Amino acid sequence: MDAPLRPGEVVADGLAEPDGPRLRIIGRIRSRWGAGDCPRNIGTARAQGGVGKVELDPTFAPALDGLAVGQPVVLLYWLGGARRDLLRQSPRHIQGTRGTFAIRSPNRPNSIGLATVRITSLDVAAGTMGIDAIDCYDGTPLIDIKPWVERADLPPAR
Amino acid sequence: MDAPLRPGEVVADGLAEPDGPRLRIIGRIRSRWGAGDCPRNIGTARAQGGVGKVELDPTFAPALDGLAVGQPVVLLYWLGGARRDLLRQSPRHIQGTRGTFAIRSPNRPNSIGLATVRITSLDVAAGTMGIDAIDCYDGTPLIDIKPWVERADLPPAR
Repeated sequence: MDAPLRPGEVVADGLAEPDGPRLRIIGRIRSRWGAGDCPRNIGTARAQGGVGKVELDPTFAPALDGLAVGQPVVLLYWLGGARRDLLRQSPRHIQGTRGTFAIRSPNRPNSIGLATVRITSLDVAAGTMGIDAIDCYDGTPLIDIKPWVERADLPPAR
Repeated sequence: MDAPLRPGEVVADGLAEPDGPRLRIIGRIRSRWGAGDCPRNIGTARAQGGVGKVELDPTFAPALDGLAVGQPVVLLYWLGGARRDLLRQSPRHIQGTRGTFAIRSPNRPNSIGLATVRITSLDVAAGTMGIDAIDCYDGTPLIDIKPWVERADLPPAR
């Protein structure tokens, strides 16, 4: 069921099933992308004109109030098809292998995708929000929307 | 058990228990902070000299390989004490109320904290990493470490 390993990839042996808190799926991300044509990252998606849309479960629509068109937000989404047991990986665009926490691969202990996007339209009543780009399959489960803020999301000065 | 509501706060009625994927706790964040003195955000923590440390479960230590001291990383952590049912909130530092997705409050459908920090030391064999600051309680469960990358984490040009 898991994707096959590439040369040099290392799996964490004997992992128990995840037993932490359960996520709540709050909506879906709509995109142009599917399994065959999904860009590798948000930069590529943006370059290809991959505009997208957030469709919240109606219950959560009121929680959009206070956001504004033009504002950057951080989206967290669940990449359900990814492996959760890889310690070292060999992505196609990298020579050799690298530890999972040193790359942005969806294959990680918790398959959470993270992207900063700009709001292009907003309908709080409908629970929908246009976004300038996104790098996941159409229908990807959404788990959070946060306003992007410089103090938390920009690397600190050295 | 939940924190009491403030005036104007709105709860999502009749929410079922979360039934999405289960998280895997991959380690703990060590900090100077506890329930009485934890800064409200990473900016304040940084100003107060709130250096911290990541301690991975030994299983995941090898996944740090490829990171480097000085590099910025995004940490995702689980804020277990937060409410998951608030649609509108009235944070102490804001006049009036605001939708949950318009603020960075830990009270959100999925209690995931997010901060970009700089690596100050790294011991892959031990599975530990010093970080320049953090804004959560000592012992907070860690769920992901991602390298900060401009294309995904910086707001796109308008």
